[in-house]
Amino acid sequence: MTLPIVSIVGVSGSGKTTLLTKVVAELVKKGYSVNTLKHDAHGFEIDRPGKDSWRHKKAGASTVALSSPEKFAVIKSVKKEWPPERIVSRFLDDADVVITEGYKKGAFPKIEVVRAECSKKPVCAKDPLLLAYVSDMKLPGNMPIYKLDDYKGIATLIEKEVIKKRKPSPIELIANGKTISLKPFIENLLAQGVSGMVKSLKGLGNAKEIEVRIRKK
Amino acid sequence: MTLPIVSIVGVSGSGKTTLLTKVVAELVKKGYSVNTLKHDAHGFEIDRPGKDSWRHKKAGASTVALSSPEKFAVIKSVKKEWPPERIVSRFLDDADVVITEGYKKGAFPKIEVVRAECSKKPVCAKDPLLLAYVSDMKLPGNMPIYKLDDYKGIATLIEKEVIKKRKPSPIELIANGKTISLKPFIENLLAQGVSGMVKSLKGLGNAKEIEVRIRKK
Repeated sequence: MTLPIVSIVGVSGSGKTTLLTKVVAELVKKGYSVNTLKHDAHGFEIDRPGKDSWRHKKAGASTVALSSPEKFAVIKSVKKEWPPERIVSRFLDDADVVITEGYKKGAFPKIEVVRAECSKKPVCAKDPLLLAYVSDMKLPGNMPIYKLDDYKGIATLIEKEVIKKRKPSPIELIANGKTISLKPFIENLLAQGVSGMVKSLKGLGNAKEIEVRIRKK
Repeated sequence: MTLPIVSIVGVSGSGKTTLLTKVVAELVKKGYSVNTLKHDAHGFEIDRPGKDSWRHKKAGASTVALSSPEKFAVIKSVKKEWPPERIVSRFLDDADVVITEGYKKGAFPKIEVVRAECSKKPVCAKDPLLLAYVSDMKLPGNMPIYKLDDYKGIATLIEKEVIKKRKPSPIELIANGKTISLKPFIENLLAQGVSGMVKSLKGLGNAKEIEVRIRKK
């Protein structure tokens, strides 16, 4: 995974969305681009009955998209839930950082909101990837605890521990939808090999982004 | 473009969405997977004020996504409208065919709906990529005319003229978001070269789908 991900976790009602939106605003103010991904284990309704995209989907389309001059939207049915890493590498891979909401079992850094009104103890206390708590209580352990409204502090934590620690990688290799982690030597070898193969094609010498997709039968 | 696209076009109110949904259902019945893309020049509202994804976006996130066990949705803000080919190759490239609604200036096959109640003459009459009309009128020229409710006939036309004519390609090359058309010889050379480079990496010999993404600074 070349793109840094950090997740805001916590029990239902703890204030994850509020924290996330405030932290996104702080990071955008600092000049970073941010994409977000919310996990909704119980499903969500984004498409309204009777709307054209809803009608397309109801007719049997697997993925429906809407495009306008300002934005586009894609709604995809899946047989099995996609892991967040796959959604990120396929659809959200064009920002400085992706902040997810939920995914308390995900293998990426986490910040847990623990609000006294909702829960007495953290759910990710034993997670080695936990970066900090955001809480109005004292909590056991040595984990840093940020106040519920310390959005600037949390944005700075994400900047320092997630965005700045991003290992810039010249290449990403995805096999069957899963990102393959590569050693730096192999990364360079592959990046140079593929760039070399395509660079003499018309107009490709200066391309900043090159993607090659291979599908075997 | 390796994925076949066909667009249902026609003036506003002509019945594009109705035709599209019926034709999608016929194609799905025939066993094809279909993705759709609706062009909405005037913008669309898919996200409801107050909903979490709306709040993420309002906070300044560039792209927001929602994921559940049955589906996921991605909403992306753009500075300039993405061409349909780019949305298709990036987000909709996993079906047998993509049916778009609108895009009467797009460089792909089209079927125009001309309904007497809405318009007296076709808008794509001179388009060399027009495949047929769907109409309740007589229209000039030699173009085939399907009845408004001949969904089976139109599905068969799409099957024959679009899906079956798909040129299977072992590789797709995308530079700066744009698909580069390649001669078959170059396609094979690249596909074999890249496959050869990655196949000895752990677990990649059997991968059906391989993607390589390179980003230069």
